[in-house]
Amino acid sequence: MRHGGDLSDAAALVPDISDWIDLSTGINPHAWPVRGIAPRAWTALPGRADLARFLDAARAAYRAPAGARLVAAPGTEMLIGLIPLIAGGGPVAIAGPTYGSHERLWQAAGAAIAPLAPDRIGAIDRHAVIVRPNNPDGAMLDGATVMRIAERCARQDGLLVIDEAFVDCKPDSTLVHLAATHPVVVLRSFGKFHGLAGLRLGVAIGPPEITRALEARLGEWAVSGPALAIGTAALADAAWAAAMRQRLAREATRLDRLLAGAGFARPGGTPLFRLAHHPRAQDWHLALARSGLWTRRFDHDHEVLRFGLPGRRAHWQRLSAALAAGLQRRTG
Amino acid sequence: MRHGGDLSDAAALVPDISDWIDLSTGINPHAWPVRGIAPRAWTALPGRADLARFLDAARAAYRAPAGARLVAAPGTEMLIGLIPLIAGGGPVAIAGPTYGSHERLWQAAGAAIAPLAPDRIGAIDRHAVIVRPNNPDGAMLDGATVMRIAERCARQDGLLVIDEAFVDCKPDSTLVHLAATHPVVVLRSFGKFHGLAGLRLGVAIGPPEITRALEARLGEWAVSGPALAIGTAALADAAWAAAMRQRLAREATRLDRLLAGAGFARPGGTPLFRLAHHPRAQDWHLALARSGLWTRRFDHDHEVLRFGLPGRRAHWQRLSAALAAGLQRRTG
Repeated sequence: MRHGGDLSDAAALVPDISDWIDLSTGINPHAWPVRGIAPRAWTALPGRADLARFLDAARAAYRAPAGARLVAAPGTEMLIGLIPLIAGGGPVAIAGPTYGSHERLWQAAGAAIAPLAPDRIGAIDRHAVIVRPNNPDGAMLDGATVMRIAERCARQDGLLVIDEAFVDCKPDSTLVHLAATHPVVVLRSFGKFHGLAGLRLGVAIGPPEITRALEARLGEWAVSGPALAIGTAALADAAWAAAMRQRLAREATRLDRLLAGAGFARPGGTPLFRLAHHPRAQDWHLALARSGLWTRRFDHDHEVLRFGLPGRRAHWQRLSAALAAGLQRRTG
Repeated sequence: MRHGGDLSDAAALVPDISDWIDLSTGINPHAWPVRGIAPRAWTALPGRADLARFLDAARAAYRAPAGARLVAAPGTEMLIGLIPLIAGGGPVAIAGPTYGSHERLWQAAGAAIAPLAPDRIGAIDRHAVIVRPNNPDGAMLDGATVMRIAERCARQDGLLVIDEAFVDCKPDSTLVHLAATHPVVVLRSFGKFHGLAGLRLGVAIGPPEITRALEARLGEWAVSGPALAIGTAALADAAWAAAMRQRLAREATRLDRLLAGAGFARPGGTPLFRLAHHPRAQDWHLALARSGLWTRRFDHDHEVLRFGLPGRRAHWQRLSAALAAGLQRRTG
């Protein structure tokens, strides 16, 4: 499977399950509460004023520096696909293994891909991509190194993409300030932390020449009225975000404990997903799938699984029971 | 103004109006009734199964032939922008004056633009664009001519785009069958006839090689979960569509009568918008704006205005009163 979050893959593997629990994504199971949406958001074309209100809220919530501009898209996935098209060619160094769409979409645009090794920044030929915190392992490349990469890209008329899709749980670690001084595009994903991935809403923050090129490619009215309205209200809701950060941190700790009890080791990731190691991770993937729990496996490492947070109490119980049953089968 | 539908333009012209009636678009004011949306549509990434259900409903509603494929996008505007990028270069003949985004976005992709004259099909150098019914005048190029244009484009390895954004009121006049036999892309807009333009949902119907190239450019999850869910339900609601066609036809007749009373002549367009001629159309545009009614004027012809349908009774009354007052000023 190329991505998490599509239960068609789960159903193909284990066809007879009707009530899947999807732990294959890093989407917050406790969505920001969508209340009454003004009918106008559905019926009218989103106007410039609607877009401006959303971008103001995003600028504040995402701490975009004064020198940078913001552009909204129907999900960051589309931005990830557009950036290689506006980057002007040339090879790209990608810090990996990481979220696969970066490599796939640079490749689709004809770019040569190289691994980005933090200790060999001089080898970056033009552009670079860093997912920070990284998906799936949560690694945070240190700020000084990222700054040196940004400088290297600048000297080569290249772009540095910093995908901060999962930074919301630790907002202080954003490097968005680089977007004011370097050819850096920071990507922020609305749907993951706010639990509204179906809404399709993502933001790129970068220097004006980059964001204007993205805007031109996206065209007019790319983002839906409900996405703009809900995004504007949700990003202004700092109290919800602060409480949610604490809640997700608690639940991630709880998930780590549960996984440790089943023999999973070296937990990593972010509060929205946990990556854990197990020599028989593939067996666990299948065993959990047979219990209706869909986790994320990876081709690059067969000894890890990624777990999103269960949402409801019943989902925690089913995960807990499935882990206990799996253990019993193995040791029994 | 480049488009209708953005009251920022209206507010710039007449700043002190707080309750604009937007008649500048061709969006049905009687929206398909959006009822409870399953929370999953907001929270989960739209899965392949969600997309497939929508495309099945769209295939049936839009009468797509078996040989053609469908691709969904967050609005047809994005498809209009992508088509020139996948067309492989070369000049394009556009039947105009018409919806401006076609010319603007082919030009942005570097294509040379020529006018498409139906009696000089031999002059088409590679690609062609026909909006049918045409926006703003409602002109319907006859099917035999369109077929000859499609054949000409096919011989030149070109594309013919048939933008059927406003065909919903007369579904029998679709030329979608050409998409099975020719390099023809038919564009269908969900939001206009269903009155849900904010949702952002459009469909391209064409040969597999074209739709697959569009899919690759759009990337994954381009359309929101609510758009897919609402689109699926609404396109299956044939009873609503049939009743709405009758209602819109009645209201268009009523609007024509109202405009004729104010001296507007030669009404044209589609039931979703009426184009009407008046030697002092520019004065009317301003006078109506001062009454809080925002109509659509055009740079290419200063003697026409386009009127969308008023929705509520109060909006009809305000239009009627503003037309009467304008007449009185002129004759008084």
